[in-house]
Amino acid sequence: MTYPRYTPLAAALPSTVPFVGPETQEREASKPFRARIGANENVFGPSPRAISAMEAEAREIWKYGDAQSYDLRKALADRHGVALENVMVGEGIDGLLGYLVRLLIAPGDAVVTTEGAYPTFNYHVAGYGGTLHKVPYVDDREDPASLIAKAAEVDAKLIYFANPDNPMGSWHDGQTVRAALDTLPEGCLMLVDEAYVEAAPEGTALEIDANDPRVIRMRTFSKAYGMAGARVGYALAAPELIQAFDKVRNHFGMNRAAQAGALAALQDDEWPIDCGRDGAFAKAVLDGLVAQGVFVRMPFSAPQNRCIRVSCGTPADLAAFADALPRALEKARA
Amino acid sequence: MTYPRYTPLAAALPSTVPFVGPETQEREASKPFRARIGANENVFGPSPRAISAMEAEAREIWKYGDAQSYDLRKALADRHGVALENVMVGEGIDGLLGYLVRLLIAPGDAVVTTEGAYPTFNYHVAGYGGTLHKVPYVDDREDPASLIAKAAEVDAKLIYFANPDNPMGSWHDGQTVRAALDTLPEGCLMLVDEAYVEAAPEGTALEIDANDPRVIRMRTFSKAYGMAGARVGYALAAPELIQAFDKVRNHFGMNRAAQAGALAALQDDEWPIDCGRDGAFAKAVLDGLVAQGVFVRMPFSAPQNRCIRVSCGTPADLAAFADALPRALEKARA
Repeated sequence: MTYPRYTPLAAALPSTVPFVGPETQEREASKPFRARIGANENVFGPSPRAISAMEAEAREIWKYGDAQSYDLRKALADRHGVALENVMVGEGIDGLLGYLVRLLIAPGDAVVTTEGAYPTFNYHVAGYGGTLHKVPYVDDREDPASLIAKAAEVDAKLIYFANPDNPMGSWHDGQTVRAALDTLPEGCLMLVDEAYVEAAPEGTALEIDANDPRVIRMRTFSKAYGMAGARVGYALAAPELIQAFDKVRNHFGMNRAAQAGALAALQDDEWPIDCGRDGAFAKAVLDGLVAQGVFVRMPFSAPQNRCIRVSCGTPADLAAFADALPRALEKARA
Repeated sequence: MTYPRYTPLAAALPSTVPFVGPETQEREASKPFRARIGANENVFGPSPRAISAMEAEAREIWKYGDAQSYDLRKALADRHGVALENVMVGEGIDGLLGYLVRLLIAPGDAVVTTEGAYPTFNYHVAGYGGTLHKVPYVDDREDPASLIAKAAEVDAKLIYFANPDNPMGSWHDGQTVRAALDTLPEGCLMLVDEAYVEAAPEGTALEIDANDPRVIRMRTFSKAYGMAGARVGYALAAPELIQAFDKVRNHFGMNRAAQAGALAALQDDEWPIDCGRDGAFAKAVLDGLVAQGVFVRMPFSAPQNRCIRVSCGTPADLAAFADALPRALEKARA
């Protein structure tokens, strides 16, 4: 008999991970990257007020964080003009995605996403035994109509839709998304991942009654707010769904300093920076860039994998990138 | 049709939470506690080196933390004289408990613990549909022989055993635990929660081959290291089991500053403080203490719930406690 006895589902899961971190690649290459612009991090960092708040809280770290993240949730509720009961805070969107999939998806349940979209969502669906159905990008954009048609076809309980999309940086305006919701099949929840919405044109964010039970929106402090390492994300949804997170989440899982930092960042409106995105480079140059010490990533599936993905960077990062790119292109063409 | 469609398991879960945090109680009472000594936090706080490391990392928080927590795991492996492959780091022991239960326990699988032991473990077992079997304390101690006998009876896949125990603060020496392992039924994993082992007498920690597949040990930076709000715990086990965590964990879930702080704390051996524990107070005084602004907690089941639980505190905290206790006793006796 094997020790321990895993569940059949756990035993069948692959040991692959959605993303390999830059530190892992640096250890394998035995040298640091010259520029770290591949993980959609915001090299400009957080608001100075957020830094001060986290520094101050380092001395208070002997206390568990508030298990209800009350102050942060209250500030977010005020910001979005919704009730406290519409807001859940979690360990990054990744953590919230895991909780949501756990609440909805049992082995064999159908889920719909786009081929090549955020793989960590797929990781969670596989991890709970869901059956993932994928539709292609349309003109390099995730396509609400395709997603919803597929959901109707397979009786999906959940749709993943990122707006703007990662990795392609494409988007739909919020009105289009809202109109699409009216065609959603009954019993299907639309998850709108707005991790990058602060970097998108005005009107991209979904404007909708927070009590609408058809949709859950997710946001993060990892991108525009420059706090990826803090692990603070949040969800906006109807109170019943928000309350359901309390059935499964790690109640004391939020780092105390991170909560304080996110609150301070939220209160400093001047800081968030439009990072933009850049994707029109050939797939073959990625290895050449990495070999030259420039960390970048690329989309996961054809035809989007003709691109590489570059996050925002400092002038030095971008100079390193500009320096390395011609050589990488030349080598790739050879 | 309801929105969304929860899994049958999620729909059946209660909305109760294992612990109500002191912030929640303060909000409900509309006043702060005078002394915060109920959550087994270490009011003396972390090592100054850990504080400095977390302060320094606040500026670097734009980067995701190392998804492998390599530096911290390496230091822990060295400290325990085991291989890197024997160590998993997670979002506190609570987070690691959730992952472990998820890996092993499917609906209906049997799990054994002690009546009145750590309720967050029970929360995770219920959350994955496991069937929890409980044995009583023996002389206010969790009893390895009782746990193992029950596991054999119900064909348990997992035993929870805290040493020292929380909330009673009782313990067994590590040799006793090690000997008990030889009677463990085949296919049953013994989880030894050593969250408080740094506060226990020499010889309490389980000394065992880290590759022994029958056991997983868990430790934390929340107690002796004074970093509860950072959310850093770790597990020591055979490589196969450690690797299995990669199938389900939130790979980028570790706060970057917390990793740096824990590493610095580990390197500062002089700092950890023996907190001890004190439990011989009557159950009825708890409400009186809380009403007087002193936050304490108590064990969950009879006969241990004759006690209240007081963590270590500053002289001011303890003075507040000493001030409040006689009045609480008097009122309880009335």
